[in-house]
Amino acid sequence: MAEAVETMDGWYCLHDFRSIDWIQWKQATPEERKEAIADLTTILTEFETVEANKDGSHAFYQIVGQKADIMFMLLRPTMNELGDFETKLSKSKIGDYLIPAYSYVSVVELSKYRPYPEDVNPEELPEVKERLQPILPKWEHVCFYPMDKRRGDQHNWYDTDFKERAKLLYEHSLTGRKYSGKVKQIICGSFGFDDWEWGVTLFAHDVVQLKKIVYEMRFDDASSLFAEFGEFLVGNILTKDSVQAYLEI
Amino acid sequence: MAEAVETMDGWYCLHDFRSIDWIQWKQATPEERKEAIADLTTILTEFETVEANKDGSHAFYQIVGQKADIMFMLLRPTMNELGDFETKLSKSKIGDYLIPAYSYVSVVELSKYRPYPEDVNPEELPEVKERLQPILPKWEHVCFYPMDKRRGDQHNWYDTDFKERAKLLYEHSLTGRKYSGKVKQIICGSFGFDDWEWGVTLFAHDVVQLKKIVYEMRFDDASSLFAEFGEFLVGNILTKDSVQAYLEI
Amino acid sequence: MAEAVETMDGWYCLHDFRSIDWIQWKQATPEERKEAIADLTTILTEFETVEANKDGSHAFYQIVGQKADIMFMLLRPTMNELGDFETKLSKSKIGDYLIPAYSYVSVVELSKYRPYPEDVNPEELPEVKERLQPILPKWEHVCFYPMDKRRGDQHNWYDTDFKERAKLLYEHSLTGRKYSGKVKQIICGSFGFDDWEWGVTLFAHDVVQLKKIVYEMRFDDASSLFAEFGEFLVGNILTKDSVQAYLEI
Amino acid sequence: MAEAVETMDGWYCLHDFRSIDWIQWKQATPEERKEAIADLTTILTEFETVEANKDGSHAFYQIVGQKADIMFMLLRPTMNELGDFETKLSKSKIGDYLIPAYSYVSVVELSKYRPYPEDVNPEELPEVKERLQPILPKWEHVCFYPMDKRRGDQHNWYDTDFKERAKLLYEHSLTGRKYSGKVKQIICGSFGFDDWEWGVTLFAHDVVQLKKIVYEMRFDDASSLFAEFGEFLVGNILTKDSVQAYLEI
Amino acid sequence: MAEAVETMDGWYCLHDFRSIDWIQWKQATPEERKEAIADLTTILTEFETVEANKDGSHAFYQIVGQKADIMFMLLRPTMNELGDFETKLSKSKIGDYLIPAYSYVSVVELSKYRPYPEDVNPEELPEVKERLQPILPKWEHVCFYPMDKRRGDQHNWYDTDFKERAKLLYEHSLTGRKYSGKVKQIICGSFGFDDWEWGVTLFAHDVVQLKKIVYEMRFDDASSLFAEFGEFLVGNILTKDSVQAYLEI
Repeated sequence: MAEAVETMDGWYCLHDFRSIDWIQWKQATPEERKEAIADLTTILTEFETVEANKDGSHAFYQIVGQKADIMFMLLRPTMNELGDFETKLSKSKIGDYLIPAYSYVSVVELSKYRPYPEDVNPEELPEVKERLQPILPKWEHVCFYPMDKRRGDQHNWYDTDFKERAKLLYEHSLTGRKYSGKVKQIICGSFGFDDWEWGVTLFAHDVVQLKKIVYEMRFDDASSLFAEFGEFLVGNILTKDSVQAYLEI
Repeated sequence: MAEAVETMDGWYCLHDFRSIDWIQWKQATPEERKEAIADLTTILTEFETVEANKDGSHAFYQIVGQKADIMFMLLRPTMNELGDFETKLSKSKIGDYLIPAYSYVSVVELSKYRPYPEDVNPEELPEVKERLQPILPKWEHVCFYPMDKRRGDQHNWYDTDFKERAKLLYEHSLTGRKYSGKVKQIICGSFGFDDWEWGVTLFAHDVVQLKKIVYEMRFDDASSLFAEFGEFLVGNILTKDSVQAYLEI
Repeated sequence: MAEAVETMDGWYCLHDFRSIDWIQWKQATPEERKEAIADLTTILTEFETVEANKDGSHAFYQIVGQKADIMFMLLRPTMNELGDFETKLSKSKIGDYLIPAYSYVSVVELSKYRPYPEDVNPEELPEVKERLQPILPKWEHVCFYPMDKRRGDQHNWYDTDFKERAKLLYEHSLTGRKYSGKVKQIICGSFGFDDWEWGVTLFAHDVVQLKKIVYEMRFDDASSLFAEFGEFLVGNILTKDSVQAYLEI
Repeated sequence: MAEAVETMDGWYCLHDFRSIDWIQWKQATPEERKEAIADLTTILTEFETVEANKDGSHAFYQIVGQKADIMFMLLRPTMNELGDFETKLSKSKIGDYLIPAYSYVSVVELSKYRPYPEDVNPEELPEVKERLQPILPKWEHVCFYPMDKRRGDQHNWYDTDFKERAKLLYEHSLTGRKYSGKVKQIICGSFGFDDWEWGVTLFAHDVVQLKKIVYEMRFDDASSLFAEFGEFLVGNILTKDSVQAYLEI
Repeated sequence: MAEAVETMDGWYCLHDFRSIDWIQWKQATPEERKEAIADLTTILTEFETVEANKDGSHAFYQIVGQKADIMFMLLRPTMNELGDFETKLSKSKIGDYLIPAYSYVSVVELSKYRPYPEDVNPEELPEVKERLQPILPKWEHVCFYPMDKRRGDQHNWYDTDFKERAKLLYEHSLTGRKYSGKVKQIICGSFGFDDWEWGVTLFAHDVVQLKKIVYEMRFDDASSLFAEFGEFLVGNILTKDSVQAYLEI
C-alpha cells in the first residue's frame, strides 16, 4: 500500500460554462436585453469588489467552439458561496438567456510531496497562502481540463511509491517552469467534489503557449504513463467593458 | 471460484437529484410559486414526521455545479415507498418546476466479512439495526458517488479470496476511522437495483474533509487496485427554513 | 476456434420503458386524462386476453428512480407483434403522455449446452415449450438488465472450450437454484436484435432477493471472469386496478 | 507492418433512421397527414423507379424498439445523391414529422483477399459488379450494425499477417454460407465516412435467423478475437402499400 | 522519458458543424428566408475576401448523414477571430435556423521530426509558411476526424523513442504520398484546445479516395499500433452559388 500524500487546500473553485440562447436573446426586447446586460455587469462588478478585498478571485472568458459560449471561474473561501453564485445567476435576468453547458467543482490544492521543517505550518507561510488563495491573472487566453491519475495494471499512480511519485512530479514541474511568464497554472483538487481528480486551469497571453505546454508535458512520465485527460475548453478573455459589444444585437 | 459474502440489508434508499427550471419558476405567478413552496414544505414536514417515528430518514441538500440543483435522499423500509415518493413529487405543484437530473436506487448494506458467533442473529443486534436503519445526520455538506469493484485481468475483486477481501476492507476501514466525527459514511448496495454496485454517501461539517477522505482512501489497496468510480456530486445543506429564501424571486 | 452452441428460441420479447410527461398530464383536461386511462386499461385488458389464450404474456411495472416511470414487458410469437404494439401505443391517447426512455428487443432463449437424446426434438418437449413460451409471473418486483459475455485477452467466452463453458454455466445455475421460489428468471437472447447479447429479467416477491441473487452470482466464475453488465432497472408491480390511482391527479 | 488489402467499392450507402413525432402527427390536420403520406409515397415510388433502372437500390423497414421508428436504406452511385436525398426528405412534408435518430454513411465493399488472375479486372466481372451494385432483397426482416476490427495488444487485426487475415475471413465466410437462402448479407466499408469501419446489413425471411447467424459467427476467430460491435437495430418490412395503414390515425 | 517534439504552429482552425432546423426554416416567411440566405451569402463573400488577401482560408460543405447538415471550416491568424466568427454567426439571421452539432478547435501544425540546419528558422521558409497558412482546396469532398496517439501499456506513443516515432511517421507519410493529387491533407494540433490531440481534414475529388487512404493507412504501424480515432464526418462541397438551391423551399 503506497503512502498517501497530504494536501493543503485553499479557496473553493467553480468553473461554470454557459451557452447563450441566442435565439431567445434576439427575440427579447431592447429593454429586456438592457436589463440582462445590467445584471451581468453588476455580477462582474461584485466580482471585482470581492477580488479587491482579497475575499476571492474570478475569471470571465468567451469559450471558442460549441461546447459553451462563456465561462465564469470563481474562487471563494467557502463551498456555500459557490452555490450562492449559481442561485443568484439563475435568478438574474441574464440567467434567462444562459443554458448550462458544463461545470466543475474543486478546491485550490497544493500537495506536500516536498517536506517542510517540522516546526513550520506551511499553510501559514505567506508564499503558500498566496498560492492557495490566488488572484487569477486576467490574461488573454484560458484553457481548462480535468484529469485523473491512471490506476492501470502496469501504471497505477496510487500504487506507486511516494518517493517515485514525488520525483515524477518534480520532473513534471521542470517542464512547467520553462513556460514561466508565458503560462500561469492553477491546480485544483476535486476528489469527492466532481468526476475527475483534478481540474487544471492555464492562462496565457499567447494562446499557442497553451498548446505547446500541454503537448510538451505529455512526454513527461508523470503524464505519458500516469495521466488520463477529460475534455478541454479554450477561451478568449471577456472584460466587463467588452460585455456590451459582445451581447449587442 | 471465490466465496461470496453475505450481506445484511436495511432501509431502501433513493437519491433523487433535480434541476430547477428557473426560467419557468420566474415566469410563474407569485400564487403558483407560493403553492409550490407550500407543497415542498409539506413534503419536508412529512419527512420529519417519518423520521421522528423512526419509520425512515432523509437528507435535503443544494447541489453545487450544474449536475443538479437539489438532492432528496430518502431511506424507507420498502421499495414501494420510494416509488410512491417519486409519484407524489411528480404530481405536486413543486414538481412542475423540477427537472429529473440523476437518481440512484439502493439499500443500506452491511457485509458479513467478520464472523458473528453462531448463536447470534446479527440483524437483531441493536447496534446493527441502528446501522441498517440509520438516521441521517443533518450536517453542512454531502457527497454522493456510486462505485464498483474491479473485475480486471490482474485485479478482480470477485475472483479474490474471501480472507484477502476481508483484510483489504479492514485496512480500508482504518482510514475511515481517522475521519471519525468529521465524516459520516452510509454504504448502500445496488446490485440488481442500479448501474453500479454500491452508492456511497458522505456527510461532513467541513466540506474539505470530504475531499481529504476520498483522496486518502484512494491509496488504500481496496481502492487503488480494486475500485471503479462513477460520478461525484457535492452539496450544501438546505433546511426547511431556508427553502423560502432559496426559492424567493 | 471454439464450438458454437445451438439455441432454442421462443417468444419474441420487448421491454418498453416510458417516462410519464407529468407536467403535460397535469395540464390535460379531466376528459383527456379519462380517455388516456381508458386506453391504457384497454391495452392491459387485451394483454390479459392474449395471455389467457396462451398467445403471449406480459408484465407491467412502475420503475423506481428517474430512468423511467413504467415498463411494459411483452412476449409474443412474432417480431411483428412487438412493432405493432409500439405503433398502437404511440397512436393511443395514453401515448401522448409517455416519453420513450429505454427499450430492449430480444427473444426467449434456451441454450443446448446439455445434450438431448438424438431421437428427441427438445423444442417439442412440453417442459421446454413452457420455458420458451413462458407465462410471466405477476410478482411484486422486477429487475431488468442486459449483459454480454466478455471477449478479453485473458478471458474470452467465445474462445473458451464448449465443455468449459457448459461447466461454468452449470455452476452458475446452482446459484440460481438456491433462489428457487424466491426469484424467477427469464433469459432472452438479443444477438442481432439489440446492443447487448442477452437481456435478463428477474421477478421476486421480496425485492431484496433481487439484490442478493445478483450479488451472489457475481462471485460465480461465469460472472466474475466472463460477464459484462449494462444498466439495471428495478420496479414495483402495477396492476390494472392500480392504474387509476397511480395516474389520478 | 502488415500488408494492406485492396478493396473494390460500389454504390454509396446511407442508412437513415428516423423516429416519428407521433404527438405532432396526431395533432396535424387530416389534410396535412394526407399530404405527408403522399410525399412519402412519392419518395418510395421514385426509389422503385431508380431500382427498376438499376441506378440504385433501397430498403424501407419499421424498426422495433425505441431507437427509431423507420429506416430508409439507400444505395446510389454517388455520395452526392445521398446528401440530396436527405435534403429532399427534410424539405418534404413528411419530413416535418420525422426526427433524426441515427444514420450511417458507407460504401458497398468487396475486399481482394483472394487473388484474381493478373489479366482480369475484377471490377468488370459481371458477378462482382452485381455484388458491388446489389439490388437489396425485400425480405421480411432486417438487421443493421456497425463494427470494427480490434486493435488490441494481443489481437490487432491491422498488425496481423495478410494470409492469416485471409484465412480467418475465409473460415468466417463458411459460417455465412450455412445461412445461404436464409440470410442475405451486405457489407459496406465506412473508413473515412463514419465512426466504425464497416456497416453490416442482414436480411431474413425468418427473423430468428438474424439472431442465429450473429450468435454463431461470434464463435469464429475472426469475430471472437478481432471484432468490436456497435449498436444493433432490427426491423420488419414496410411496403409502400402498408404505409397508409402504418400512419393511419 | 521520451524526448518531446517541437512544433511549428500556423493559422488557428475552427470546424463548426451545424444542423439546419428545417421545420423552423419551412415555417419562416419567404422574407425571413431571403434575409437569412443573404446573411449566409455575405458571410461566404467575406470568407472569399479574407482568402483573397491571404488573411485566412475556409471550406464550406454539406455533411452526409444525420450528424450535421453543413460544415464551416475556418483558418485564421488568431484564436479571437474564431470566437468572433461564432458570435457573428449566432447573431446573424441564418443563425436562427442553425443548431450547433459539433465543433473542433485546433491550429495548423507541422512537427519538427526531421531536423533543419541550425542556421535556418524553418518557420520563415516560404514552403513551410505555405503549409502553416494553407489555402484550403475547394475540392468536391471533405472528411474530418479527430485522433489521439495511444498511451497503452504496450504501445505508448509518448513513451516511444524520438527516432522511432520519426521513423513511424516517415513510413506513414509514404502511404500519404501515394494519394498525392487525389487527397489533400491538413493536420491541426489541438492539445489544450479540444478533446483530442489532432484534427485531420482530408479533401478529395473522388470521395472513394477518402475511404481508400484511411483504410490503407490503418495498416501503417503509426496507426495500427498507436492511433485512436474519434468520430468521422464526410461531406460534399457547397459553393456560394449552390446555397440558394440548397435552402430553397
